[in-house]
Amino acid sequence: MKSLNVELADRSYPIRIGAGLLADARQYAEVEGRRLKLVTDSNVAPLYLTHVLNALNLKEEDALVLPAGEEHKSWATVERVLDWMLGARLNRDGVLVALGGGVIGDMAGFAAAIYQRGIDFIQIPTTLLAQVDSSVGGKTGVNHPRGKNMIGAFHQPRLVLADTTALRSLPQRELLAGIAEVIKYGMLADSDFFKWLEQRLDDLLVLDTDALTKAIYRSCELKARIVAQDERESLAGGAGPRALLNLGHTFGHAIETYTGYTQWLHGEAVATGLVMAADLSARLGWMSAKDAERCTRLVARAGLPVKPPAGMTPEQFLELMGHDKKVAAGKLRLVLMRGIGLAVVSGDFDKDALQATLEHFTKQ
Amino acid sequence: MKSLNVELADRSYPIRIGAGLLADARQYAEVEGRRLKLVTDSNVAPLYLTHVLNALNLKEEDALVLPAGEEHKSWATVERVLDWMLGARLNRDGVLVALGGGVIGDMAGFAAAIYQRGIDFIQIPTTLLAQVDSSVGGKTGVNHPRGKNMIGAFHQPRLVLADTTALRSLPQRELLAGIAEVIKYGMLADSDFFKWLEQRLDDLLVLDTDALTKAIYRSCELKARIVAQDERESLAGGAGPRALLNLGHTFGHAIETYTGYTQWLHGEAVATGLVMAADLSARLGWMSAKDAERCTRLVARAGLPVKPPAGMTPEQFLELMGHDKKVAAGKLRLVLMRGIGLAVVSGDFDKDALQATLEHFTKQ
Repeated sequence: MKSLNVELADRSYPIRIGAGLLADARQYAEVEGRRLKLVTDSNVAPLYLTHVLNALNLKEEDALVLPAGEEHKSWATVERVLDWMLGARLNRDGVLVALGGGVIGDMAGFAAAIYQRGIDFIQIPTTLLAQVDSSVGGKTGVNHPRGKNMIGAFHQPRLVLADTTALRSLPQRELLAGIAEVIKYGMLADSDFFKWLEQRLDDLLVLDTDALTKAIYRSCELKARIVAQDERESLAGGAGPRALLNLGHTFGHAIETYTGYTQWLHGEAVATGLVMAADLSARLGWMSAKDAERCTRLVARAGLPVKPPAGMTPEQFLELMGHDKKVAAGKLRLVLMRGIGLAVVSGDFDKDALQATLEHFTKQ
Repeated sequence: MKSLNVELADRSYPIRIGAGLLADARQYAEVEGRRLKLVTDSNVAPLYLTHVLNALNLKEEDALVLPAGEEHKSWATVERVLDWMLGARLNRDGVLVALGGGVIGDMAGFAAAIYQRGIDFIQIPTTLLAQVDSSVGGKTGVNHPRGKNMIGAFHQPRLVLADTTALRSLPQRELLAGIAEVIKYGMLADSDFFKWLEQRLDDLLVLDTDALTKAIYRSCELKARIVAQDERESLAGGAGPRALLNLGHTFGHAIETYTGYTQWLHGEAVATGLVMAADLSARLGWMSAKDAERCTRLVARAGLPVKPPAGMTPEQFLELMGHDKKVAAGKLRLVLMRGIGLAVVSGDFDKDALQATLEHFTKQ
């Protein structure tokens, strides 16, 4: 078991990573004696709910099982959670436990953020993506017909338990989608970690506990360091440190929007976005063609897509990228690389190079 | 014009108080050049909307006029505000202006808190209650069928403009309800201010600008000092400094609940609650009978009610007070006084004295 502390002054909290944590009563010492409620979904409940309820000494009625799936990441679902907590008369000392993937974590975190103006919550992420991404940073929220995560809040958990055992039940495609985000951390902030991933990718793919623990730990550590510099993504008008975490995401969002958020998993779209960002960085002469090729190869070896969906055009990319949250005053800013491990936010790049990247990736 | 700064580290903001501020373009320097949207209600719009739009160089379409009244302080209304901002493609650099009383401030503040995980907002409170109470402290939110303000967030404004001229259009009953909260600040934290109120009450009642400016300034200053110690009402399990601001509120909430939140204004219920808290404090020997009598007299002179509604029984009070948010682990805690200007939170008082107070105030 490894443990790290996310340093955010009075909102600091520990992340513990290892095998079997969710069923281990000792892991919940931080909230001993407090009234707890738990939210999970219909996929996760049959697998882990009983273990967690037992470890926390809770009854079945203390858990709310929500329908699984991104399409339920809506205000209506959060309202259901709020009504349920109010009906149970949970007071401001209460704690909400989120057991599940990113959708459950985002919704339960948001419910905790706005329940009686904010109560504590615990994250038990059961997907690799949630363990390395949504469990650090305090972003919570729901989707709106006009966009993903348009309604939400920053609300830090009190504790995160990343149980590597839970990943054994994860569909392979979702495991790979999580690995895309792990690769992202290496590409954006740590060339040694990137090298380690090149060496240990196969161990990750067979769910070796030590490799997983190390990969999750380092990903969380890198993200936590960035979040500590820019907790609310408010520095430099959104182009500060935290924006670096969006490496691959602007291209990725375009793919997700184009495919209606149904065919591609977020991590898959990010994977292709990472490859495209590396390609553009190389075209700009900001990183070597060899390093860009290493990025492409690692993504491909993980069984992740390295090309956008067939039929997507450069024009569609530009149009969909123009609607990205990271567009300031009409100017397209991208997260690019000055080498592996050295991401930068820039709106000041040759637009012809971007056009060349888009053409390269969309040619049939 | 007087100005004070609410000190909350990177969330600090100024409150400016004086005549004619809302129509004065110079007052909005803090948000110059940023995209603004404004929310107000159907009572306030005919009176001040044009002035504010002109000062901010905004068009009519930049304002959303909501139906007036506490019954609209709901999630449905906030959702309308969020949909409208999303429809206008307001981005994270946008600023939301709240022009109106406490209901508008609470809802617009909450919408700003959760719009794309939080954008800046400006408060232009147009009631005395909102100027002295809801414009300091960052509490935002909406009501839920199960209780008032059950859904919400802490979100500090970037700027508050308390325009004393706006109070000229305020119905007399609402002015008095605001004065109840002003009296509360004297009672809980400043005996000199209480004395000043005894001397200048008549000037306040005729809307003397200097008296109003001083009363609002001192109320905000006292509240800001307390809020700075305990921004999220989280210290001592909710029994910390910020709880002192609830002087009179536990009795008051019982009255509001009993009367279904329709017949009594919040400030009126608080006024009676203040008198009851003073009475109980005197019965406990914590303050002199003479000082308790001064409290009763000042509330009465302001034309505010000093008795609960006819027919309410001690048992009903106890039942309704038991459901108050400030109840920790089943123990009733009250804000009481150890003298004028010296409020304390205590669950450790003689329950017979409480019974005597309730009987005294409910006898016909």
